[in-house]
Amino acid sequence: MKPHGLLHPPHGRPKNLQPLDYLFYPRHVAVIGASSQKDSVGRAVFENFFSHGRCAYCNKVFAVNPKHSKVLGHKSYKNVSEIPFDIDLAVIAVPARFVPNVFLECVRKKIEAVIILSAGFSEIGEMKLTQQLQRLMDKNPQVRVVGPNCFGIFVGDTGLNTTFSAQQKMLLPKPGNVAFISQSGALGVTILDWAATQPFGVSKFVSYGNAMDVDESDLLEYLGKDSKTKVITVYLEGVKHGKKFLRIAKNVARKKPVIVLKGGVTQQTHAATISHTGSLAGSTEVYEGVFKQTGIIQAHNLTHLFNFAKIFETEPLPNKNRVQVITNGGGYGIITADALVQNGLELAKLSTRNIRKLKKVFPPTVSVHNPIDLVGDADANRYKIAVQTALRDPNVDMVLVLVLFNTPAISAQLVHELGKLKKTAKKPLVVASTGSRFTFEMRQLLEQKGIPTFSYPELAAASLRALWEYAQVRKRN
Amino acid sequence: MKPHGLLHPPHGRPKNLQPLDYLFYPRHVAVIGASSQKDSVGRAVFENFFSHGRCAYCNKVFAVNPKHSKVLGHKSYKNVSEIPFDIDLAVIAVPARFVPNVFLECVRKKIEAVIILSAGFSEIGEMKLTQQLQRLMDKNPQVRVVGPNCFGIFVGDTGLNTTFSAQQKMLLPKPGNVAFISQSGALGVTILDWAATQPFGVSKFVSYGNAMDVDESDLLEYLGKDSKTKVITVYLEGVKHGKKFLRIAKNVARKKPVIVLKGGVTQQTHAATISHTGSLAGSTEVYEGVFKQTGIIQAHNLTHLFNFAKIFETEPLPNKNRVQVITNGGGYGIITADALVQNGLELAKLSTRNIRKLKKVFPPTVSVHNPIDLVGDADANRYKIAVQTALRDPNVDMVLVLVLFNTPAISAQLVHELGKLKKTAKKPLVVASTGSRFTFEMRQLLEQKGIPTFSYPELAAASLRALWEYAQVRKRN
Repeated sequence: MKPHGLLHPPHGRPKNLQPLDYLFYPRHVAVIGASSQKDSVGRAVFENFFSHGRCAYCNKVFAVNPKHSKVLGHKSYKNVSEIPFDIDLAVIAVPARFVPNVFLECVRKKIEAVIILSAGFSEIGEMKLTQQLQRLMDKNPQVRVVGPNCFGIFVGDTGLNTTFSAQQKMLLPKPGNVAFISQSGALGVTILDWAATQPFGVSKFVSYGNAMDVDESDLLEYLGKDSKTKVITVYLEGVKHGKKFLRIAKNVARKKPVIVLKGGVTQQTHAATISHTGSLAGSTEVYEGVFKQTGIIQAHNLTHLFNFAKIFETEPLPNKNRVQVITNGGGYGIITADALVQNGLELAKLSTRNIRKLKKVFPPTVSVHNPIDLVGDADANRYKIAVQTALRDPNVDMVLVLVLFNTPAISAQLVHELGKLKKTAKKPLVVASTGSRFTFEMRQLLEQKGIPTFSYPELAAASLRALWEYAQVRKRN
Repeated sequence: MKPHGLLHPPHGRPKNLQPLDYLFYPRHVAVIGASSQKDSVGRAVFENFFSHGRCAYCNKVFAVNPKHSKVLGHKSYKNVSEIPFDIDLAVIAVPARFVPNVFLECVRKKIEAVIILSAGFSEIGEMKLTQQLQRLMDKNPQVRVVGPNCFGIFVGDTGLNTTFSAQQKMLLPKPGNVAFISQSGALGVTILDWAATQPFGVSKFVSYGNAMDVDESDLLEYLGKDSKTKVITVYLEGVKHGKKFLRIAKNVARKKPVIVLKGGVTQQTHAATISHTGSLAGSTEVYEGVFKQTGIIQAHNLTHLFNFAKIFETEPLPNKNRVQVITNGGGYGIITADALVQNGLELAKLSTRNIRKLKKVFPPTVSVHNPIDLVGDADANRYKIAVQTALRDPNVDMVLVLVLFNTPAISAQLVHELGKLKKTAKKPLVVASTGSRFTFEMRQLLEQKGIPTFSYPELAAASLRALWEYAQVRKRN
């Protein structure tokens, strides 16, 4: 039936197609199990093709539902074979027991990629059904399958969204450089929704669930080569094939930062991860060894996963681990210095020449150590001098600027000055600032200027540590 | 000149006055160094008496500035002695070198409490000036002094605000039960601004700076007896008088939770804390020993300080450390269980009877372990059954509910149901939920119903651990 008759390939689709390109850049999509029923997964998935502002797939998506001739006003096909166009991607949202048959229909239709959203397989002990599906998949390896028991995918540059997120209840990220892959659908939703509030955008998002075919390693490999992806973040409960993962992860981590949050790291949660996606949990020590060996950066909680993604998206890698802290609040500087040291970073020591210079230009209340405490009446100019000096000092590898935006002397002028310095900065330059409304606004302005900001100094410290950790990985390789 | 002629004592002022009551509940206040000059501390302090909605002190505050007859349109006195009323509290915002003389004038005026905002004493090595001031203070112990080098105080129930926070750049908290005392003025600002966004209110806030007279122990003692304060949080760099602190902290922690964030815990930051407020830093091990011994709950970073304050304000203390997790997202449940175990808490095991009951009412996809995974199509009713069961189960001491608000089946109905359960709950019941706009809204609704919510599961876990830690303190005493 090829070539496709209806529409051009989507913008961004590579020329030499890899199997997984059909997943991320399909020309036509079928939603099998599309439905008009309120609060159903089949409805949410289908609706999402027509929402969230972008509608790149409005004319390229087809509803399949044997019980209805229309779904949400669109023609519905009884069977995927009835669709008069070639289909690159099928999204399956039917009850588990119907999945094997529906999959076979996709095979017959020569569909290249299938996403099975349906739950009810190995994760709840339905081994017979799982094995039946596995056999069919093994017989048809040309069809690449994501899932089952997953949340779907989202592609930043085309707006393709096969998830069943409830439109009014979450936001979608803008196009960008950060990829997220998640074994857990729930965490996937969270990540997508949260990423929408971030300064960076998302290249590809995949919730891959039980990983009966496409697994974390396949996705890592694809994203490693994906020109639109700069940073890869992963939520992982277990690895399907150890050796394959080791080989691919090592290879990818050499080129791009790979940040992993591992779920099920305590003995008490091992059992839960096994039941959750039916994967092998493995001991924490084994995983930590694998991460170290491959150069993967481990995030120990969700906050870190999110903040690491942010810092890697904008910042260059540091040469060494010496951080200069610049603050307008003494105590704020001290807890930050504590956090840096606790993260294995060093407090930089400015060159004697620079110390002398700063002491000359600053009032005697200013403390020219590390932290440089510009004190409560510091204005944009005082910050400018300190930050510029630190950026140029050979003894400084990273600059962490703390700002309490609530003092009388601080205004948006500071954002302007930091933005100017950022343009030519060759070292990581980040800002931490805790507060409410006004602080949020100033942080957003800073992020628009490409400066990552953190709501708490301890998050900035942990993120700088991740940057330094990855700098060492890159030096090693 | 007493009794006071102008106005009645402020609402909330206790009947049997303690010396520090003049600080928190003054009848008349003098701002010495009040100024009309843009961006000056003297202006910000004086202006704050006329702003932020409440104006309890509009007719009770007097400007003192020898250079001007008017400050911001208000009569200015050349000297505090010229004010034709008794003054309970003087706020001093003049350059450091003038402070000793100004202090003497306050003594002559028989002012009971003085806040010295001015910096430029021991913290920058000005020992001569510091000693001069110290001698004057020692000669007049009847005058209680907060500072110097501090940010001032804020009193929730009267709206008294002697800080020099820039009005447009920060919010002020509502009246409530949480007290904050901070050696660092900068952290003080941050805390005030941040607290304004929280569900709870603030009873008293004090930035006490160099603590030349009133120190952390005096404030702890006062707050321990203060009927308006339920939770005490402290940012501490060093302790002035070890034995005094030990005695008072032990006594207060027996009655109310005292949460301390200690700044300067790494060797590299000791020097900075000493220069910062001129206090003795002491080794980390010594402090940790003191905190353990006295029953103080240590927060290891700012995020924890904030989140612990929140959980203590609403939640009862648990009997034991067994937590039941209830989620609608598997992976989200697993990383939460990891965090609980890493915090030394136990995953509760529901009674066999309840497990059987839940298995009967829930669909087979639901996993009735810990976490209870209600899966992606869980609605308010499924949550209600699970939470109610956990609250009633004798094997459960705390209930941690995780909600991904982005699924089609979750609506505000869940908030309603949880709010109803909270009313009769005798165990800690908290919610963690990560996301953006819709999630924020739902969290705010939950907090209005008295349920503390956390943006990340690891913060909920750490906060429940703090609750359990304090429960053990109370059992011990």
